[in-house]
Amino acid sequence: MSTQLSDALEGKATPVMLEVSKKESMRLEDLMKGIAEGKIVIPANRNHRIKNTCGIGAGLRTKVNANIGTSPALPDVEKELKKLEAAVEAGADAVMDLSIGGDINTARRQIVLNCSVPVGTVPVYQAAVEAIEKHGSIIKMKPEEIFNVIEQQCREGVDFITVHCGVTLRVLERLKKQGRTTDIVSRGGSFMAGWILYNEKENPLYENYDRLLEIALKYDVTLSLGDGLRPGSLEDATDRAQLEELIVLGELVDRARAAKVQSMVEGPGHIPLDQVEANVILQKRVCKEAPFYVLGPVVTDIAPGYDHLTAAIGGAIAAAAGADFLCYVTPAEHLGLPTLEDVREGVVATRVAAHAADIAKGIPGALDWDREMARARKALDWEKQLNLSIDPERARKLRKAKNLEETSTCSMCGGFCAMKVVAEQLGTRFKKC
Amino acid sequence: MSTQLSDALEGKATPVMLEVSKKESMRLEDLMKGIAEGKIVIPANRNHRIKNTCGIGAGLRTKVNANIGTSPALPDVEKELKKLEAAVEAGADAVMDLSIGGDINTARRQIVLNCSVPVGTVPVYQAAVEAIEKHGSIIKMKPEEIFNVIEQQCREGVDFITVHCGVTLRVLERLKKQGRTTDIVSRGGSFMAGWILYNEKENPLYENYDRLLEIALKYDVTLSLGDGLRPGSLEDATDRAQLEELIVLGELVDRARAAKVQSMVEGPGHIPLDQVEANVILQKRVCKEAPFYVLGPVVTDIAPGYDHLTAAIGGAIAAAAGADFLCYVTPAEHLGLPTLEDVREGVVATRVAAHAADIAKGIPGALDWDREMARARKALDWEKQLNLSIDPERARKLRKAKNLEETSTCSMCGGFCAMKVVAEQLGTRFKKC
Repeated sequence: MSTQLSDALEGKATPVMLEVSKKESMRLEDLMKGIAEGKIVIPANRNHRIKNTCGIGAGLRTKVNANIGTSPALPDVEKELKKLEAAVEAGADAVMDLSIGGDINTARRQIVLNCSVPVGTVPVYQAAVEAIEKHGSIIKMKPEEIFNVIEQQCREGVDFITVHCGVTLRVLERLKKQGRTTDIVSRGGSFMAGWILYNEKENPLYENYDRLLEIALKYDVTLSLGDGLRPGSLEDATDRAQLEELIVLGELVDRARAAKVQSMVEGPGHIPLDQVEANVILQKRVCKEAPFYVLGPVVTDIAPGYDHLTAAIGGAIAAAAGADFLCYVTPAEHLGLPTLEDVREGVVATRVAAHAADIAKGIPGALDWDREMARARKALDWEKQLNLSIDPERARKLRKAKNLEETSTCSMCGGFCAMKVVAEQLGTRFKKC
Repeated sequence: MSTQLSDALEGKATPVMLEVSKKESMRLEDLMKGIAEGKIVIPANRNHRIKNTCGIGAGLRTKVNANIGTSPALPDVEKELKKLEAAVEAGADAVMDLSIGGDINTARRQIVLNCSVPVGTVPVYQAAVEAIEKHGSIIKMKPEEIFNVIEQQCREGVDFITVHCGVTLRVLERLKKQGRTTDIVSRGGSFMAGWILYNEKENPLYENYDRLLEIALKYDVTLSLGDGLRPGSLEDATDRAQLEELIVLGELVDRARAAKVQSMVEGPGHIPLDQVEANVILQKRVCKEAPFYVLGPVVTDIAPGYDHLTAAIGGAIAAAAGADFLCYVTPAEHLGLPTLEDVREGVVATRVAAHAADIAKGIPGALDWDREMARARKALDWEKQLNLSIDPERARKLRKAKNLEETSTCSMCGGFCAMKVVAEQLGTRFKKC
């Protein structure tokens, strides 16, 4: 079976490569080189027709993922489909279905069917929910059942899957020796850890990693190597348990590449601001430049209700340092399931962070957008400013609410607008644009 | 006349020094050394009774300022007093009255009277508004009138004033040679530049800086040396015009210190993420460690409606690099005058950035807050989590809206809560706290 990786290695340009090359203004040969070296992935299951696919990795625009999905308290698939629509409309580059409530198969199938961007999942969620239904407990889940769910989800078109292969017996040993404030906060990580410690057996996803690779190869599903031991509080950040898992993930990236399976690596989590860059450098070194998919990171624990913001701070710094893919965090994080409005806000906040980072990264064209906006500001061209806004709808709404009538300035300064003062009296003397 | 600076130089501990030393858990002698060296200021006009004063500078918690004030379109003083209340309640460490609409004197006096934290102003705003009333134009403003307003505002209790002394003939020459996309975006900077270029005379605040120092000395008003040429777009960031002004401000810091007048320096503005740290290092070097008061910085131009967030990203990075004082930016920035809700959101967003930076800076005690929150999370103690939140009201509201009944988990994961899974099955095996 061919994957984007095997094709790139053989010098075959696929339609999605051509599409990504064009969208990102990256020369096809550079893109193919990036894919061949494992520095770039294009999650695109051969069984999923994706309207807007995307490349993730070195030299490309930083991508944004939105998590949606049912929960036991809110098992309504229709609501999640609305969130899907809102996320994509707000500019998400990928969507993960994290459903664990109600009819999980239907939720995922509907999301895969209706999603115009790549879809990711965490198959062990479904395996765990089914284990509870069948056996009464997650820890009684059978390895075979996990693989069956993975195979099923891949066959049905999921483009990338989070697999917590790095939560091994030895890694958990390190965790115990380390001691932590918040132990394990990754949902999938906690399921695997629970299973491993109760059964006193190795992680089946680690032990049977070759089987996982076979499935991924068959459908060209991109592996997103999950960080089950990501810190859940600043105090736990960059500790020995986290690093031990990262080392394992680095080895698994090597094995994925050898099997011609596309892979990326997931990262923290809760990280103090001054450790964010170090975490990116570490991942990039240990995992040989595999695309880095970070969950936040949030840079403080104390801001529930504002975690889209704490994650935007951490995400911007991480992406500027080289992270390639930002998982959004919504204002609902640490409080409950996001609403439609939370989803929208989370996507835009994360896009802001990604864009700020892309300017710092020197992504070709990134600064052009800001340049255009600056020119519209200087010209006091409000219509253009609103249209150029990352969220034109919100900008328009605020502008309208804050300014009673059509005016060339705004209600903050009125006639005392610095732009106006300079432009009217002196503009021609040192105006450039 | 004595100032906090002259007292510190003479080894006299003042009541506000004792207060700041206690609040910040900084040894009094260290605080006094910081003030004596000009690395710390305590804005406290001898004519203003401040309930909660604050120190700003090296080794202290990063402070947050909220701008309020009337505009010609919204000249309602009562509304601004409500914003004052909201800002202080949300945790602002200082407030600036930037009124330019309606009865400016009444607005300022009411704000000074009702404000429990230090109050700042930009006196040239009032001078400009009065010049238009009297002479029909800002450029006809008389130097004597500017100084009269400054003297009046200082006499009436303002604790720190922004003075754009660095917008000199030579600096404007640099600006003209440089060429810019957004020229001047500082309101006060544009007034001064307009005046200077029209009148072809030197900036009166620069030319008569000694007079300014005398007034500041008399009331112990802290000078906030404004950056009239701060960039108003990423493309203009860290350009020669900005740097030329910074050099002048460095010289003026020296002169303020010689006169025993407390001073700090204002900074950008619109800055690409990868230039933020360099800007802080530059200011700290050129201005000999004077406290740095940054306006944002916003790290992209394209997010009107989300500029509390773009500024939180820039502000967190700036403060982590050594900036001492963050001027808030609200979601209304670049669109209009902030509402009460915008003020609240702006203050909290900026506090989040400041706190994330304080952890990175290693401010004693900063991480304790996160540690407590992490422990409450691990214990699934929701009441404690909500109380520990930076905005308990919002956290409580969201928690309530998202979770139908009293539950130990939340509507995102329910029984699949990682904390719960680990705690119930394995918690005792590697729980630390």
